[in-house]
Amino acid sequence: MPTPARQRIAAVDLTPVAFKDLPLLNAVGVHEPHAIRTVVEVRTDEGLTGLGETYGDTAHLDRLRRAAELIVGTDAWDLNAVAGQVRAALAGDAGAGGHGMAGMVTNSSTADAVFSPFEVACLDIQGKATGLPVSTLLGGAVRDRVDYSAYLFYKWAGHPDAEPDSWGAALDPDGLVAQARRMIDEYGFSAIKLKGGVFPPDEEIAAIRALRQAFPEHPLRLDPNAAWTVPTSVRVGRELDGVLEYLEDPTPGIEGMAEVARQVSMPLATNMCVVSFADLDPGIRQRAVRVVLSDHHFWGGLRRSTLLAGICETFGVRLSMHSNSHLGISLAAMTHLAAATPNLNYACDTHWPWKSADEDVVKPGALTFEAGAVAVPTGPGLGVELDRDALGRLHEQYLECGIRDRDDTGYMKRVDPSYELKKPRW
Amino acid sequence: MPTPARQRIAAVDLTPVAFKDLPLLNAVGVHEPHAIRTVVEVRTDEGLTGLGETYGDTAHLDRLRRAAELIVGTDAWDLNAVAGQVRAALAGDAGAGGHGMAGMVTNSSTADAVFSPFEVACLDIQGKATGLPVSTLLGGAVRDRVDYSAYLFYKWAGHPDAEPDSWGAALDPDGLVAQARRMIDEYGFSAIKLKGGVFPPDEEIAAIRALRQAFPEHPLRLDPNAAWTVPTSVRVGRELDGVLEYLEDPTPGIEGMAEVARQVSMPLATNMCVVSFADLDPGIRQRAVRVVLSDHHFWGGLRRSTLLAGICETFGVRLSMHSNSHLGISLAAMTHLAAATPNLNYACDTHWPWKSADEDVVKPGALTFEAGAVAVPTGPGLGVELDRDALGRLHEQYLECGIRDRDDTGYMKRVDPSYELKKPRW
Repeated sequence: MPTPARQRIAAVDLTPVAFKDLPLLNAVGVHEPHAIRTVVEVRTDEGLTGLGETYGDTAHLDRLRRAAELIVGTDAWDLNAVAGQVRAALAGDAGAGGHGMAGMVTNSSTADAVFSPFEVACLDIQGKATGLPVSTLLGGAVRDRVDYSAYLFYKWAGHPDAEPDSWGAALDPDGLVAQARRMIDEYGFSAIKLKGGVFPPDEEIAAIRALRQAFPEHPLRLDPNAAWTVPTSVRVGRELDGVLEYLEDPTPGIEGMAEVARQVSMPLATNMCVVSFADLDPGIRQRAVRVVLSDHHFWGGLRRSTLLAGICETFGVRLSMHSNSHLGISLAAMTHLAAATPNLNYACDTHWPWKSADEDVVKPGALTFEAGAVAVPTGPGLGVELDRDALGRLHEQYLECGIRDRDDTGYMKRVDPSYELKKPRW
Repeated sequence: MPTPARQRIAAVDLTPVAFKDLPLLNAVGVHEPHAIRTVVEVRTDEGLTGLGETYGDTAHLDRLRRAAELIVGTDAWDLNAVAGQVRAALAGDAGAGGHGMAGMVTNSSTADAVFSPFEVACLDIQGKATGLPVSTLLGGAVRDRVDYSAYLFYKWAGHPDAEPDSWGAALDPDGLVAQARRMIDEYGFSAIKLKGGVFPPDEEIAAIRALRQAFPEHPLRLDPNAAWTVPTSVRVGRELDGVLEYLEDPTPGIEGMAEVARQVSMPLATNMCVVSFADLDPGIRQRAVRVVLSDHHFWGGLRRSTLLAGICETFGVRLSMHSNSHLGISLAAMTHLAAATPNLNYACDTHWPWKSADEDVVKPGALTFEAGAVAVPTGPGLGVELDRDALGRLHEQYLECGIRDRDDTGYMKRVDPSYELKKPRW
């Protein structure tokens, strides 16, 4: 067993990777043929390596590189010191671009987003040094399985100029019900989320009603990514009252959300208007949301996310979890975090089913879905192991695919030159 | 080196102790000849022992005993499991009595107060298992010395029917200035706090002015423990505007404090109206205080106190630290916590100078004051070692002194039968 005390960071490797993605539609366009991520490896003098995963966008990758240089020499146990070096690396950085979310979330904290993968990697190291899973280091797993939700998307049959993918088209209620049925058959999910904001609200209401009929016991959520005005949000919120467990970001901004909240009884949720610690005071004061979707990738890592959880518990806000297209390192981190968060009251989001089963940077077997849940890894650290060959392949794919910044809107415009970005659209 | 992974709790020892205290006056009476505490020892199957320290009052000791039984078998790394067992032990307990603060603070969380010493002991174990100081386990020390303040009390020359103690009387401005001078000469403190609420407000204003004249550079604080009405608080707050760095709990309750806050520009601080997580939402919403004095003994231990710190930072509330009469285990825990809390913006309170130098349960040398600060211990865990002989002596003293519940008011009434408890008094 390695000596656990003090783990001086000796080197940091950053590897941008790309993995195949499907033409999933959202309020700002459509997913490109590849999703990009950065894999972070932090090595210590003691010979331990910790893993992290984050966005792959150019500006973010550049910030990661600057931060990586400065954290060398700090102790992987001393998270305050690592955070301090990250802040130092970002001094003078105005935080433009690189948010990895195609413009849907832009006002999160740049420092928290850059710190996050290093913090996760440090916790992985701490776990390996002690033999403890990350969930234990976060205070202890209160559940041994973490529930995820079936994350439905409207989608084209395939990318333009390509064969249809195995999921085929989902552009109406029947298509979504079929998509949900396959996803639930394969993964066993017991909650359903629909990414909306794609078609006029009445079509999406019809889709939700069709899902309710087909899956009478599954809690349902709808996320139009702020595509609606306040009046539209109120109308949809009232029409779907009692049908959805929560309505996610119907309209932009804390003020808009608060206005909707005053007029509907259904809980509103967000991962767009309350996305950083700076948003919590106004968001809570204005009673804008009853559910916050946390995401350790932009809330500053796992321990900062437990702080967010504690704040939510203290102020009577419920907690769910947001997802972006991600690989196994992130799924492991999300699972440990959710396991150690007593007040995580909902099944977490995940894009996992949309990823090819043969594409990941972690060795298979550590993370499997059963009855819609992932068993919390019990091995040291995150409990996942890097597959170096696979990392190399996905890095090659990154080099070849040419995508350097996630751009759902630009891709949509190339396919449909008449497409216009509008927020709100309806 | 012991194996760090998994530290099953095998046994818990609770030892009530008493140490000599001086006749320090406050808003509810006077300190009795002995202060009582409970020393907590948590032992693991791996042979490690962790230390905690908390109140010694009967009802609290009874709760500690019930909790101690239930936490045996849990893992000292799994703080959520330990907390769950403490909650189970307290099921049906209405939380009456045992708060250890002579009635000055009664609405703190019983579960958090009972969990606290076990949590500290578990962190001590985790530190010993890994070779890391508790400050590192809390996220990393951001300072290597923690500043404390000179905590002045009005006091009698000695306990009734006893010889005067070495500090002598302090019942007017001159007495307090002399007390401050000795304390600062001996410890080097660079901030001064006066426990008020003892004499009519104008006398305490005069005392503060005398201290300001004698110590022009030392930040000053006054804590009348809610002895004043709102109008009196406003009057004093205005008179001492610019003289005090903050005014602590002038009047009872969040509503009263908020009313004072609206009428004075000086920051108000509290360890009486915002004393649990349940108080934070109303306290912050009503803008009742600008400084919270944290205290891991009733905020649920060190990690819950870092949650409090994160909440304060998020909502723009400043942070200081409260103290009760305490021994070296608590001083070590307070020092690690303060070291790992970036936004602890003030010198912490401590009753340390009022304790006899020859009375403690930890071996001497680990904690020393220099220039008003304690160097953060860098050894494993809390960095203090139990002195078993001293523990035995202070336990004998507990058995002999007969004090089973802190009762400043009862003691005062025995000395002065005309004494009446009044809140507010002026």
